[in-house]
Amino acid sequence: MYPDSIKNLAETIARLPSIGKRQALRLIFYLIRNQDVRRQLIQQLNELEKKIKICERCFLPFEGPGQLCHICSNPSRIQNIIAIVEKEIDVFSIEQTNSFKGTYHILSHLIDPSDINSYNTLRLDQLEKRVRRLPQQIADEIIIAISPTTEGDLTAMYLERKLKNLAKKISRIGRGIPTGGEIEFADAETLKNALSNRR
Amino acid sequence: MYPDSIKNLAETIARLPSIGKRQALRLIFYLIRNQDVRRQLIQQLNELEKKIKICERCFLPFEGPGQLCHICSNPSRIQNIIAIVEKEIDVFSIEQTNSFKGTYHILSHLIDPSDINSYNTLRLDQLEKRVRRLPQQIADEIIIAISPTTEGDLTAMYLERKLKNLAKKISRIGRGIPTGGEIEFADAETLKNALSNRR
Repeated sequence: MYPDSIKNLAETIARLPSIGKRQALRLIFYLIRNQDVRRQLIQQLNELEKKIKICERCFLPFEGPGQLCHICSNPSRIQNIIAIVEKEIDVFSIEQTNSFKGTYHILSHLIDPSDINSYNTLRLDQLEKRVRRLPQQIADEIIIAISPTTEGDLTAMYLERKLKNLAKKISRIGRGIPTGGEIEFADAETLKNALSNRR
Repeated sequence: MYPDSIKNLAETIARLPSIGKRQALRLIFYLIRNQDVRRQLIQQLNELEKKIKICERCFLPFEGPGQLCHICSNPSRIQNIIAIVEKEIDVFSIEQTNSFKGTYHILSHLIDPSDINSYNTLRLDQLEKRVRRLPQQIADEIIIAISPTTEGDLTAMYLERKLKNLAKKISRIGRGIPTGGEIEFADAETLKNALSNRR
């Protein structure tokens, strides 16, 4: 019913996370009506294709020379402190705080308990190889910086067990009341964690 | 903070309807991780750019030879019955019913009462020229096939007044209980319209 070029493109766009078939069609008709946005999108996707590389060490996308991102290749970053995060965006969020001087490992996804394959695609082999290449062949600290959701907690437990020989210390980011949040509205679990996490 | 190619692309994607900055970034990181989807997307956007034309008469996007879409160029379609719709998707929805043998005019958007410019970009000049080129220089019927929302009703009222000399008859699509809908759950306005729309 739709012309082929619209139908095929709609199927691809509907494969993207949290975009359905109907929204895909709406996006396409918007692009058809707006030539400038459409051409800019094509041009910028080509730029992305041409320039973006994935860091061999931490899997962060980056631009520029070499095989390592600007964090892994920065001599002032501490290579034997590694923060494990779920996804790329989390690295940029943590970097914005300017309070972490270690390096990262991006899992790319959390464990989905209904998908046994999701245990094997967290790039932990690469993490182990990387740690074994450190001067001491062990990390000082692995910080599990994963959201405290159900799947996040499951993933964290799995990682703690799996990685225990890779680091002198394995920690998790602190749980508590978010800055600006009110104790009155915190759920019991958050409050419990905030109390035991006191300093 | 983000590499330029990611930052620029995110700004363009966030211009698309109902996509925010954060979702744009998530989409981009998904594309970076999934080379096959990314390349398919680029290839299909290029196809769209190359093949899609906009019908000179009704503004429907189409592929193929000539300047008219497959509906406007079809000799068995009735040129002096014109359904006015808001957007491209609506044409395909109506075509799926196989119950309309006239042609279309796509407004591209509804009137936004807070934006005076939105009154002037409904392509009504082109509609008038098209009607004046009909053998009788007037349409038999203009059907206003616009959703019965607040903005849709405003647009319909404006069109009825503005187009009254262009057609022997101006009609609106029927209002009533949707097929499969229950009277119990219909709101009063819908029920009122369904009653007055009885046959």
